[in-house]
Amino acid sequence: MLGLSQRSRFAGNAIEDGDEVAEKIARSGKEVISLNRGDPAAYFKTPGDIIRYSINVLKEGKTGYSYPGGVLELREAIATRQKRLYGLEIGPDEIVVTQGVSESILFLNSMLINPRDRAVVLRPYYPLYVPALQMEGGVPVYADYDESSGFRVDPDRLRKALYGARGKARYIIFSNPSNPLGTVMSRKELSELAEVAKDNDLLIMSDEIYDEIIYNGARFTSMSEVAKGIPAVILGGASKSFDAPGLRIGYAIIPDCGRYSRELLAKLMDYAKMRLCANTPAQYAFAKAVNDKAQHAKDTVKMVREIAKRANLATDLVNQSKYMKAARPSGAFYVFPRLNMDALKFKSDTELVRKLLEEEHVYVTDGSGFGAPGHIRIVSLAPQETLRVAVRKIDKFLSRYSK
Amino acid sequence: MLGLSQRSRFAGNAIEDGDEVAEKIARSGKEVISLNRGDPAAYFKTPGDIIRYSINVLKEGKTGYSYPGGVLELREAIATRQKRLYGLEIGPDEIVVTQGVSESILFLNSMLINPRDRAVVLRPYYPLYVPALQMEGGVPVYADYDESSGFRVDPDRLRKALYGARGKARYIIFSNPSNPLGTVMSRKELSELAEVAKDNDLLIMSDEIYDEIIYNGARFTSMSEVAKGIPAVILGGASKSFDAPGLRIGYAIIPDCGRYSRELLAKLMDYAKMRLCANTPAQYAFAKAVNDKAQHAKDTVKMVREIAKRANLATDLVNQSKYMKAARPSGAFYVFPRLNMDALKFKSDTELVRKLLEEEHVYVTDGSGFGAPGHIRIVSLAPQETLRVAVRKIDKFLSRYSK
Repeated sequence: MLGLSQRSRFAGNAIEDGDEVAEKIARSGKEVISLNRGDPAAYFKTPGDIIRYSINVLKEGKTGYSYPGGVLELREAIATRQKRLYGLEIGPDEIVVTQGVSESILFLNSMLINPRDRAVVLRPYYPLYVPALQMEGGVPVYADYDESSGFRVDPDRLRKALYGARGKARYIIFSNPSNPLGTVMSRKELSELAEVAKDNDLLIMSDEIYDEIIYNGARFTSMSEVAKGIPAVILGGASKSFDAPGLRIGYAIIPDCGRYSRELLAKLMDYAKMRLCANTPAQYAFAKAVNDKAQHAKDTVKMVREIAKRANLATDLVNQSKYMKAARPSGAFYVFPRLNMDALKFKSDTELVRKLLEEEHVYVTDGSGFGAPGHIRIVSLAPQETLRVAVRKIDKFLSRYSK
Repeated sequence: MLGLSQRSRFAGNAIEDGDEVAEKIARSGKEVISLNRGDPAAYFKTPGDIIRYSINVLKEGKTGYSYPGGVLELREAIATRQKRLYGLEIGPDEIVVTQGVSESILFLNSMLINPRDRAVVLRPYYPLYVPALQMEGGVPVYADYDESSGFRVDPDRLRKALYGARGKARYIIFSNPSNPLGTVMSRKELSELAEVAKDNDLLIMSDEIYDEIIYNGARFTSMSEVAKGIPAVILGGASKSFDAPGLRIGYAIIPDCGRYSRELLAKLMDYAKMRLCANTPAQYAFAKAVNDKAQHAKDTVKMVREIAKRANLATDLVNQSKYMKAARPSGAFYVFPRLNMDALKFKSDTELVRKLLEEEHVYVTDGSGFGAPGHIRIVSLAPQETLRVAVRKIDKFLSRYSK
């Protein structure tokens, strides 16, 4: 019986929805301004030490399978970094290395979700969180950030969202810094969130892949500093803070806080064993990069300074358009304007984004992909001149479609 | 509600079941003879050209995300190789690059299987096939190779296995060369299997990751030569024939044979988008290695000659023990002896393998992990002297536990 499964209809990624169209345009010889994918390496060269380390590892011939949960050197380096930055005392056996954070999220949902289980998703969210949950039969319970307070987490709203799901919700997931909002959660917000999780027996999944991309005076707090004794998974990796997304190295830290956390670790290892390992040379190279804190600090300060400049410029440019309004981000590298949809002749932000790609060859992502219709997400990593051209094109395009 | 999902109980991999014990032994300073994992790079240096290409790609700074379905160069290289070796006319858009073959298998099961759907698994099988199916709610229908004819595929047995599953079975999966059997399917077997698949509306999943590890006079036929016009997925990658398992580059070829195959390709792309891409430098390096056919032929001939020697030696050694009996393999790098369990004091092959690791520090895999209780799988890649020592230890151990 040929066919596809019911769950397969959830698969996809709004961020890549236009890939086929963009490729067709590019093949026809026209330039596409791609502001859809948060790829720092497309604009900032991956630090020379990561490249050098990779080359050395290859020369040493470390090209076989590794331990499924990740090479010991890397797990030790991550543990040391987590202690250095966030005071978390963990050992290498509380860490599982995965093929990017995405693989952790896919595995965790498979591990945790029975059909009709709930999970709390802070909204807007990173696209993968929802299909990864729905494919396992799970039902998202959304808790919206409070737009009126600058997209803060409102614990009352959280408790309210949980009310209907009491006893059925497995975990709460969010990214901090937020993708797509660019907000950085305060220690107070994190504590309140952890309390709600504790009261409701929820596992906390804190996606901290952008933990070092912080600017405009913000201060980052890791959930691992706050959720002491509460079951939590801290996700991170090489893709953003280390500017090496093509390595596909992510990790899940599950601090030991009793039997349940140890069960999670053992089960995640079972999943890891099924696909043998992550890229071996990249694991060793990333381990060295994580350990070389002086070099990394130098690389990061430079990159983040430039990221801040571009994010601020993109925000200003966007706010000069009468069809868009964006808050200034202080983490990650996205600008997420609300569109004045009432003044525009589009049925949806999804239609808008598709036409923008087809007609202006500017590739951004629809807010609907993040659970926030009426917005678009612009990756603000491009050089200033490219951002100017792109936002000008977007504004002209919106004018053309104004009512 | 903290807990684990029902499906998570299926996760795991018999091949890695002893990892924690083996690591403990190794940490205590004692040597473990690891014959559990089919890692050619542990014994045969990954060809110098793959290393060199990887280094060049890193120097060129190709460390960002790639197209989710794989870089065009690699998909073109795979298409060309498939044409060169098997006469298959395909384009790069009929190929999706995944993080090893494992990721293809996990994605395909998620794409295809609704709860209670069936899938036909030729037995013994590669361990992943079964949990990947069961985790999605699928039920395996086993069709045993015919041991009396040297583990050939018997189409009557296949049709019989399908009888109870008529109308509910989605696909048929097998590895050729077989892991763990080391058999290579004849063109006739493949044709008969394809006919059964066609008659029963089954997608064919042919795992051909060992397609160039062929010896002892065997001749490999790819399912893609036979299944013209029948929906099929051909799986392959860098791990075995190219001796670069740590790269984690696999691929799924889905030759266009009508609407269903195109739906499969589009859906597999949706899955690929969720995890962004496979390791980018490895993709480019593998592309060059695939294209450099003269160098690859040279590397492979040399490696396969040595693999054959070791597999034959391991078979001979095993057959000198009165507790084991193995057929001579002609593909892959495993020896899969049947044990004389009646003469031994073990409740199961699983117990035997655990004790062998704990007491003799020889790490092999239980046949039960492949659906064949009463067997063990020995990776025959180690140097001759290691194989001698290992099999001697196994034989001594079995003697000690004889009735």
